Amino acid sequence: MSNDQKILNVDLGDKSYPIYIGCNLLSQNSLFEDHISGQQVMIVTNSTVAPLYLDVVTKSLDKFIVKVVILPDGEQFKTLETTNLLFDALLQEKFDRSATLIALGGGVIGDITGFAAASYQRGINFIQVPTTLLSQVDSSVGGKTGVNHELGKNMIGAFYQPQAVIIDVETLRTLSDREYSAGMAEVIKYGLLGNIEFLSHIEANIDSIMARDKSLIIDLVYRSCKDKSIIVSQDEFEQGKRALLNFGHTFGHGIENTFGYGIYLHGEAISIGMYMASILSQFEGKLSQIDVDRIQSILSKANLPTSISKAIKSEKLIQAMSVDKKAVDGNLRLVLLNSLGDSFVTGSYSQENLQKVISNFC
Amino acid sequence: MSNDQKILNVDLGDKSYPIYIGCNLLSQNSLFEDHISGQQVMIVTNSTVAPLYLDVVTKSLDKFIVKVVILPDGEQFKTLETTNLLFDALLQEKFDRSATLIALGGGVIGDITGFAAASYQRGINFIQVPTTLLSQVDSSVGGKTGVNHELGKNMIGAFYQPQAVIIDVETLRTLSDREYSAGMAEVIKYGLLGNIEFLSHIEANIDSIMARDKSLIIDLVYRSCKDKSIIVSQDEFEQGKRALLNFGHTFGHGIENTFGYGIYLHGEAISIGMYMASILSQFEGKLSQIDVDRIQSILSKANLPTSISKAIKSEKLIQAMSVDKKAVDGNLRLVLLNSLGDSFVTGSYSQENLQKVISNFC
Repeated sequence: MSNDQKILNVDLGDKSYPIYIGCNLLSQNSLFEDHISGQQVMIVTNSTVAPLYLDVVTKSLDKFIVKVVILPDGEQFKTLETTNLLFDALLQEKFDRSATLIALGGGVIGDITGFAAASYQRGINFIQVPTTLLSQVDSSVGGKTGVNHELGKNMIGAFYQPQAVIIDVETLRTLSDREYSAGMAEVIKYGLLGNIEFLSHIEANIDSIMARDKSLIIDLVYRSCKDKSIIVSQDEFEQGKRALLNFGHTFGHGIENTFGYGIYLHGEAISIGMYMASILSQFEGKLSQIDVDRIQSILSKANLPTSISKAIKSEKLIQAMSVDKKAVDGNLRLVLLNSLGDSFVTGSYSQENLQKVISNFC
Repeated sequence: MSNDQKILNVDLGDKSYPIYIGCNLLSQNSLFEDHISGQQVMIVTNSTVAPLYLDVVTKSLDKFIVKVVILPDGEQFKTLETTNLLFDALLQEKFDRSATLIALGGGVIGDITGFAAASYQRGINFIQVPTTLLSQVDSSVGGKTGVNHELGKNMIGAFYQPQAVIIDVETLRTLSDREYSAGMAEVIKYGLLGNIEFLSHIEANIDSIMARDKSLIIDLVYRSCKDKSIIVSQDEFEQGKRALLNFGHTFGHGIENTFGYGIYLHGEAISIGMYMASILSQFEGKLSQIDVDRIQSILSKANLPTSISKAIKSEKLIQAMSVDKKAVDGNLRLVLLNSLGDSFVTGSYSQENLQKVISNFC
């Protein structure tokens, strides 16, 4: 094992699990074997990731009966129909309740596979092997699994925890620049919503981070997962504090819904969404112009967008935001910043200010 | 409230909930209001139950925004596609995470609605209002929700607990004799698998029970739910002891799979399955001929079948049994009886004896 390897334990009582973060982890048989109890293993991956990492993972599972399902790549396949393809495969192979699923890919693969694991025979084990920066710092912690519905993102799913998460940062070598930046949106989010020291660390090292320095990445992923796990441990089922993690997401989901899947990457929409939430925080008297400029600057240095690429109707964006699940009993709640590194959830902001922000961006 | 009303608390830590059992409960607004926290309520029922009880339940919900989904009646509609119809309705009505689903109907409605509640926005509240004897004594306790797949029953689902169960035994007045008997199969099961005193009580009162004496029914439902809840409290996620509740079910599911849905009611298949498991227990030297005859007698008095109506191939039944989820790593485990009222789970019985039982019945 490399000296750089880190292990984070996500503390959720009898649902606790470890996250391994390091280099060349995909070829470490013992990491997999320690978290598989039965004989039957199904790897779920997609047509982009399979040619790159399926072989090495399959070799690490030589003690098990291994089946593979390769899905098409893309958010548009994150549906109930695709999940049903996994159920078909599991039943055709006569996989029983002792089986383990392995999600090898980005967030879409993790979300679908996790939901299939949660629902197959009312719950079987699964291991996450996230291969994008976004999924490494986001889906690794929190147990959110699920699929999209044509009327809204992530509307069908379950809170369901993996047995382990294995993050091999070597997989980021094959990630496109655009996908890498999209992952950085969530990393920057952890700084903005609750950790000013982490934000400063990112700012100070942004050039090396964007050059994909491995030691820096291992540290970034570890710290992101740790910040998220502290919040999730206090609120597994998103009744309260966990909503802070949605900083930028209500705006961001609105943008994704309005433009349709495939125009913006999730991280790109979240980047714009975080900037919109920051401007609203400024209008509400919480942030200074300097704060807002600092946010704009770090997002730009991570090659992330902070404006919408073409004109859309304000009403359409508002409507798309209100279908978002963070609405409780019809009242649209947002995460705003008190200051850099200090966020809060609120439904009581000026509607006029919200309109002004949306008009500025649309 | 009638003096006959009983309340059973199902003890599952922070997922505990009450089961109310009595007469005319559907019209008691407070029973519903005490367990609904938001404003949005969706009643899910079917085309058989709606004309009978939808009005009275809707009246009891006059403080809420109430929407209704009426599904076609039948096990063949217990599918992922039907569940998706509920997601469609919930999203079209912009129901949020504070919404409550009410399952008004038998086991199929309860299973689908429970799974929809478990999966919509990763989990919303639901209340069970079971209107068949089978669902009152079975689905009321245990949190098993889910739907069928063409390759097996209940293969997709979740363990998910309701906020409350409201059992109005008046609804049994409109139940067919055949459905009532099917419910009695599960009642008798609780006696056979773990409560010889309850079995004797059923035997002593079988005529009045079959004549649907209300006080006797309230007591039967209460004692069945209580016996089940004691087992479930010890093993919420079916890792061990809970498997005892599957007495007769591996055989029964095999029969249902072989004949196809719609030939046998679930309770009828379980009746045959329990008798088959009893004969196997006899062959294994656990039960006497007198015990087996006693089982056959009480099932017959409840107008339940104890033999298969037409010849089928043994191999086909064996195959249909082995897809059952009680198989662990390919080894078919069965629940057998040590004696009347004392059951155990085992994978180590004589394969020859199993073959003999199946040949006798096929």
